[in-house]
Amino acid sequence: MKEVDPRVTLVGAGPGDPELITLKGIHALEEADVVLYDALVHEDILNYAPAHVPKLYVGKRAGSHSYPQEEINQLIVENALKYGHVVRLKGGDPFVFGRGFEEIVFVESRGIPTKVIPGISSSIAVPEIQKIPFTLRGITESFCVITGTTKAGKLSNDIREAARGTATVIVLMGMSKLDEIHSIYSELGKENLPVAIIENGSLQNERVIHGTISTIRTLVKEKGFGPPAVIVIGEVISSWLQLKPVPKK
Amino acid sequence: MKEVDPRVTLVGAGPGDPELITLKGIHALEEADVVLYDALVHEDILNYAPAHVPKLYVGKRAGSHSYPQEEINQLIVENALKYGHVVRLKGGDPFVFGRGFEEIVFVESRGIPTKVIPGISSSIAVPEIQKIPFTLRGITESFCVITGTTKAGKLSNDIREAARGTATVIVLMGMSKLDEIHSIYSELGKENLPVAIIENGSLQNERVIHGTISTIRTLVKEKGFGPPAVIVIGEVISSWLQLKPVPKK
Repeated sequence: MKEVDPRVTLVGAGPGDPELITLKGIHALEEADVVLYDALVHEDILNYAPAHVPKLYVGKRAGSHSYPQEEINQLIVENALKYGHVVRLKGGDPFVFGRGFEEIVFVESRGIPTKVIPGISSSIAVPEIQKIPFTLRGITESFCVITGTTKAGKLSNDIREAARGTATVIVLMGMSKLDEIHSIYSELGKENLPVAIIENGSLQNERVIHGTISTIRTLVKEKGFGPPAVIVIGEVISSWLQLKPVPKK
Repeated sequence: MKEVDPRVTLVGAGPGDPELITLKGIHALEEADVVLYDALVHEDILNYAPAHVPKLYVGKRAGSHSYPQEEINQLIVENALKYGHVVRLKGGDPFVFGRGFEEIVFVESRGIPTKVIPGISSSIAVPEIQKIPFTLRGITESFCVITGTTKAGKLSNDIREAARGTATVIVLMGMSKLDEIHSIYSELGKENLPVAIIENGSLQNERVIHGTISTIRTLVKEKGFGPPAVIVIGEVISSWLQLKPVPKK
């Protein structure tokens, strides 16, 4: 019988498109003894792990806390001790509101070594696939990525600070906070600031809408947009609107 | 003779480690008729393109503007018209201060279709590989990525706005701006805010130092740190310092 050598590799699965995983992530999966994966991880990615390897779903979705984080932490450790190499496969990037660091802290406190393999973060990639810039030389020199769902389930207050400046603001998990976003920007007299929202980014059913702080909520309702979605707010979206894409042959 | 079908795919090569390219990026390279690549792109990645395909270096490095952007834009178009499918391979992610959008605008204005394949951005991945968190539930709900080298060669003023809040601040291309960073934070009474700097992130010769706003410049000099490097500023680094990594067997 093989001796168990417990270790944990956190792997970012990327924003949805199964080809947006890294080669390093694939190699980790090929050497997995067990895989623990989240919601929003494309099932094709699981196939890089050997067929006999257990693949356990520990997913959460906003609103339904099926697996509390403490339980996931515990499951990672138990599986490492039982099987050896745990690949903890997380949607997007494990460190962008992914609670990856919390998992590392817990696992290492139990004497089990960890490694992190970054993933393509939807915060960057989802606008980018639509060719929406968030940095642009001479126009926008920074961007801020903000969670719409803090520990308390609220929109982070950091958006108030960010809204004052000229940085592009990217909000993840914020679709239920559009009224609040509207209030914050309106109070600053920024009703006309452009906004774009991308739903199901990087997937076949990807959709995008654009408007302004004052018009976007109506558009969301009209088109029936919902999570998972990335919200991009900033002057730089005007440059994108000037781009006339060449139709694909 | 094969008919030329001009098109351009921007591909993010990732932060340095050649395994941190995406599968989608590899597939694009396999279908390239010509590759135009930057400095900081690992040469192993070029090997995914067929052997006979021309691989042209159009790199720039901070300080030596060997290829002006206008010339690169022109080269992309010329090569698309001559060979067909141009893979424009860029370090990190093409949209994170990568001027990817500018290239798209130029190429599409010449009637040539473009596509973007995101890359692993060093802004996120380089701290992450060191297990340095920049978001942490209950502590840090956002992060801002800021360029240390704007169009005018300056540190972006956006850092003044960001420094006031509690977002983690990540500065790229900022190693020559540490005095200015020190002044900005000191004026806000934040001399004791933790700072970490990672040099050659994701590569074999990767190094990391940490200190505070008031101590980091001395450490940089002592250890001889220089570009390419990622600067991370924020309270969340304290959590990282509490992590006692399990030694690898």
